Amino acid sequence: MLEVFKLQKEFDDILADRYNVKFKNEALLDEAFTQASYVNEHPDQDLKFYERLEFLGDAVYQLVVSNYIFKRYPDMPQGRLSRLRAAMVNRHSFSRFARECHFDKYIRLGRGEEKVGARNRDSLLCDIFESFIGAVYLDQGIETVKHFCNLVIFPKLDEGWFDEFFDHKTELQEAIQINGPVNIDYKVLDEDGPDNDRQFKVAVYVDNQELGVGEGHAKKNAEQAAAKVALNKLGIKDQKLQ
Amino acid sequence: MLEVFKLQKEFDDILADRYNVKFKNEALLDEAFTQASYVNEHPDQDLKFYERLEFLGDAVYQLVVSNYIFKRYPDMPQGRLSRLRAAMVNRHSFSRFARECHFDKYIRLGRGEEKVGARNRDSLLCDIFESFIGAVYLDQGIETVKHFCNLVIFPKLDEGWFDEFFDHKTELQEAIQINGPVNIDYKVLDEDGPDNDRQFKVAVYVDNQELGVGEGHAKKNAEQAAAKVALNKLGIKDQKLQ
Repeated sequence: MLEVFKLQKEFDDILADRYNVKFKNEALLDEAFTQASYVNEHPDQDLKFYERLEFLGDAVYQLVVSNYIFKRYPDMPQGRLSRLRAAMVNRHSFSRFARECHFDKYIRLGRGEEKVGARNRDSLLCDIFESFIGAVYLDQGIETVKHFCNLVIFPKLDEGWFDEFFDHKTELQEAIQINGPVNIDYKVLDEDGPDNDRQFKVAVYVDNQELGVGEGHAKKNAEQAAAKVALNKLGIKDQKLQ
Repeated sequence: MLEVFKLQKEFDDILADRYNVKFKNEALLDEAFTQASYVNEHPDQDLKFYERLEFLGDAVYQLVVSNYIFKRYPDMPQGRLSRLRAAMVNRHSFSRFARECHFDKYIRLGRGEEKVGARNRDSLLCDIFESFIGAVYLDQGIETVKHFCNLVIFPKLDEGWFDEFFDHKTELQEAIQINGPVNIDYKVLDEDGPDNDRQFKVAVYVDNQELGVGEGHAKKNAEQAAAKVALNKLGIKDQKLQ
């Protein structure tokens, strides 16, 4: 039990020092980090597990992200806003955030789940990320969630974290065809290497003019890379964001 | 032009009198009710169309609904919360809300769109409902959106508006199987009427005990009705909400 308290103190300190988040109601924080398996193993403790907070946190996070990108990119049309939001609300990125914040260390799991390595499972870390957001919202209000996202999430926009979820080919098509139809072609320039380490080089042509060359281990990755280069060349520097 | 001002005044009065919503920045309200087709027909007026506000309003509405049902049903598990939210965030219900609030009358459409009857199209009314929410949020803050939803949306929960989007069969299954597997069967008791007005009568059996009978013009509707009766009989009165 002492171990549990030590861990909790350590986590409280991390949240306070790094993110300036101080819970008034510690029970909410406990709930956010407790899996049903742990509750089942401690029937005497009247514990709650994280799932309802995850439900709420999902909607809170969606709004905080939507509001942020709406205001940061005042001229971005709806379609792009939606795709950018989808990239930022991608559950894969949640697990990365959860790991970055060391949430994995503080989850309360049942013994069975612990044994099968649930603590490092992406899906659990996603859930915990959302339940944490839900708990912060209930305890502190949406401004503290915004503050947390300003520290942890939004800087990632500039670091290209969300690029991998982004479809540069669609971006390029939309950016170029805004004033009417244009021909966009992708051609494989080169294909090299052994079967298990194949490398593709692809060029993108806009009305027969080469605008970018990209490389990748699959044709579609090379095409995406070429589209990204073309977007940069067209002056759409923050290519998904202007 | 005089006509436009009269209409705007009328709409302002409706919003103020019925919903206590008074816009500080009227331009946001205009944006929320203006379709791209209208903007294209008035290139000299520097207008904005509703789509970005719709993007934002979607997330605002999701959070307001999530927060409301989270607090109203403190014991409802996540799965049910999610399905209830999905029912309330169903775009079909948006168009009903928009009509109830007479939003259709105040949309600014291009002439072509007007001719093809876009004003009464569900999809447009959905969009406008969300863009209105987005505009209220930006102009007044989330508390005013909550107030609007308290007046217009949440009472509908008690009036059964969302029932048609709700899956009573799944509800019944979850309510019954919470303590282990149970056999649930649906049997057609009767089938009557001409082909274009067929009526089905279906009973639901839980471990061979009849728990409810329902009727409908399709087998699946009769099953849903039977499941709803069974949920009531089981004491799950507010069947989707306990």
